[in-house]
Amino acid sequence: MKISARNVLKGKVVEVTKGATTAHVKIDVGGNTVTASITNESVDELGLAVGKDAFAVIKSSDVMIGV
Amino acid sequence: MKISARNVLKGKVVEVTKGATTAHVKIDVGGNTVTASITNESVDELGLAVGKDAFAVIKSSDVMIGV
Amino acid sequence: MKISARNVLKGKVVEVTKGATTAHVKIDVGGNTVTASITNESVDELGLAVGKDAFAVIKSSDVMIGV
Amino acid sequence: MKISARNVLKGKVVEVTKGATTAHVKIDVGGNTVTASITNESVDELGLAVGKDAFAVIKSSDVMIGV
Amino acid sequence: MKISARNVLKGKVVEVTKGATTAHVKIDVGGNTVTASITNESVDELGLAVGKDAFAVIKSSDVMIGV
Amino acid sequence: MKISARNVLKGKVVEVTKGATTAHVKIDVGGNTVTASITNESVDELGLAVGKDAFAVIKSSDVMIGV
Repeated sequence: MKISARNVLKGKVVEVTKGATTAHVKIDVGGNTVTASITNESVDELGLAVGKDAFAVIKSSDVMIGV
Repeated sequence: MKISARNVLKGKVVEVTKGATTAHVKIDVGGNTVTASITNESVDELGLAVGKDAFAVIKSSDVMIGV
Repeated sequence: MKISARNVLKGKVVEVTKGATTAHVKIDVGGNTVTASITNESVDELGLAVGKDAFAVIKSSDVMIGV
Repeated sequence: MKISARNVLKGKVVEVTKGATTAHVKIDVGGNTVTASITNESVDELGLAVGKDAFAVIKSSDVMIGV
Repeated sequence: MKISARNVLKGKVVEVTKGATTAHVKIDVGGNTVTASITNESVDELGLAVGKDAFAVIKSSDVMIGV
Repeated sequence: MKISARNVLKGKVVEVTKGATTAHVKIDVGGNTVTASITNESVDELGLAVGKDAFAVIKSSDVMIGV
């Protein structure tokens, strides 16, 4: 599937922490760590694990700018 | 101000396109282009312009993972 | 790409309205009309047009419940 | 209350899973399962339970398109 | 309709600015101005106009904390 | 850091509830209680605790209007 989200950043999973329902997944994207808060279900379905290639996907309306 | 958003990615503005009310701002973050959809008002208040240093700020609950 | 977003609803594009920077795309999903607000850029890149098959993709943390 | 969110999809609750603070609620909307990640508090206040009629409510800026 | 969103703040519309597709609506909530970016369609359907009572509705997963 | 988010509401923390991965933080903003769902990590990094001054920060595209 090709998606409308403007931001699809290639990286590698560096940490997966499952909670009761919500997991935090950290991806290294070119030296930056990007944290995603997703469902445990998604972690399982995508087979996310440390070392795996993955993309951080972010809709542009969810990106703010700071200066 | 220090913010709870987990993702604060340092970059440089490479494009600013204002619409009628909504602007699209592109930031180069270590070679990746990150697109933000923000208000024209914010562009003006932050003085965003090509070449300026800026951060892309993203709440972790707005980050998805793709594989 | 397989994505963590829990909601991927199959439908057909019934309306595309481009604005200055932001487009509104309506998809018929099993009789329900789902409206997406996305960038004009995405409309062009995905070649969205009336009659085309498409999916509405929604992260579960963006879904509220009403009763 | 009438709300600006463009997407108000009628369905029936098919699953409620409470976590430590965050619950996952699944609604059947015309054969599609829509998953919402909301607070446990909201589950209690709305009295959400399997079999109950409910709406999935989604702001159009939170809907992406995939093809 | 009763909604799961934890934040429903009562106020009064103080400004409505329509763009090509996206409108900015400002509500005074107890002295604070809250800005909403919604569709022009919603502005019309809700009959939003300066002076009208209205609520700002925000899902808790969309609220960040700054210190 | 100065941020593009249009809504930065000053208040005081009145409740902090940590879950397995996700915390709920309530801030009193001029008599209104605003609930934020953020990571436990952010609670720790910002040192959030009852009685502490804090801002609720909300992107305008995440604000809906109800009437």
